Amino acid sequence: MTIISKQGKKFRVPDATIHRLPLYLDKLILLQQAGVKEVSSRQLATSLDIKASQLRHDFHYFGGFSKPGRPYLVDLLVPALEEIIGIDVPLPMVIIGAGHLGQAIANYKNFERQGFPVLGIFDVDPRLVGLEIRGIPIRPQSEMESFVRENQVRLAVLTVPVQAVQEVANKLMACGVVGFWNFSPTDIKVPGTVIVRNERLAVGLMCLSFKTKRLGNLELFP
Amino acid sequence: MTIISKQGKKFRVPDATIHRLPLYLDKLILLQQAGVKEVSSRQLATSLDIKASQLRHDFHYFGGFSKPGRPYLVDLLVPALEEIIGIDVPLPMVIIGAGHLGQAIANYKNFERQGFPVLGIFDVDPRLVGLEIRGIPIRPQSEMESFVRENQVRLAVLTVPVQAVQEVANKLMACGVVGFWNFSPTDIKVPGTVIVRNERLAVGLMCLSFKTKRLGNLELFP
Repeated sequence: MTIISKQGKKFRVPDATIHRLPLYLDKLILLQQAGVKEVSSRQLATSLDIKASQLRHDFHYFGGFSKPGRPYLVDLLVPALEEIIGIDVPLPMVIIGAGHLGQAIANYKNFERQGFPVLGIFDVDPRLVGLEIRGIPIRPQSEMESFVRENQVRLAVLTVPVQAVQEVANKLMACGVVGFWNFSPTDIKVPGTVIVRNERLAVGLMCLSFKTKRLGNLELFP
Repeated sequence: MTIISKQGKKFRVPDATIHRLPLYLDKLILLQQAGVKEVSSRQLATSLDIKASQLRHDFHYFGGFSKPGRPYLVDLLVPALEEIIGIDVPLPMVIIGAGHLGQAIANYKNFERQGFPVLGIFDVDPRLVGLEIRGIPIRPQSEMESFVRENQVRLAVLTVPVQAVQEVANKLMACGVVGFWNFSPTDIKVPGTVIVRNERLAVGLMCLSFKTKRLGNLELFP
């Protein structure tokens, strides 16, 4: 996608690069927690199963972060990536659908730490309404639109059934939501001014299956 | 990774390609359900926000699936990809950790349809033990090892707390597990003969944040 630098310069960053930035950050935070101070592009790339040239190419879009031949300084690279990814400024979100997955996401404390506080959780099931998750009450879905408007929420997590997801998304967009984290295993139609991230859990499982079945111990899977 | 063809030929497939195969399959199944019979590499690639040349390159590793200039036949490509990914032969799994996320995964009927039946769910919390999810009882974690051995389980889903995950993984490997779907936000150490797929939910959220904050309506995020 085309992004605009702080200096007002427009430049294109490939989607694949955008997707890898959080993977770099995730790994760097683990390194930081382990007390690692410096890491080379080769070390960081190898730990993520990609090529060092790819990593350097990705970083190049944002200034490179180190001099040629020098390692990256973990304590500088972490906040730099956090700013680029945009998690230095909190982006509050609502969760629509308080089933097991919605509750799991609401329970995940790290999201709040990483800049994504959950403002509200909504469900159509009256048995769930009124329950609290980490102090956040599950509200009736009929209150979703007014809540989103009043709190100027821009980001919504969708864990509703497939047949409901488009209607819910339409309502949210009419209230100002511009980003969807969609866990329903279907596509939603949105205009070009709205971002959708489809989280297909089955895709991860299939990658794992592909590799596991080809481990060389194929006799395990007749 | 290096894989072996049916003809016994060894060849290397990049990790990025392996990761995209399930995305292609996922999209093709949606097209199939919508009654679409033919799709060009450009159409399929565009719908996934990648280049058509990339898609053709990925498919080339497995024979290409169509003649130059001809579209792919959806009803032939779906089973071909299913066979390559390996979901034509069921790969049973166990879930360790029956919290919200573990229960959400156990509840996800599609995994079973896609070739990943859940054989057992385990937890250390006695309040959860005995509950049933889709007819599968939550068992005490003390029974995990004997169950995995007896049922020759090769794949485990890990939704246990960070501090427990390595120990649980070690026990499972000793019982024959060779593939982990790890939802704990930490790395686990495994030998080269074991496959780990780390599912970092926060990574998806960060990609979404990056794009949403750069939508051109940056004034929304002061």
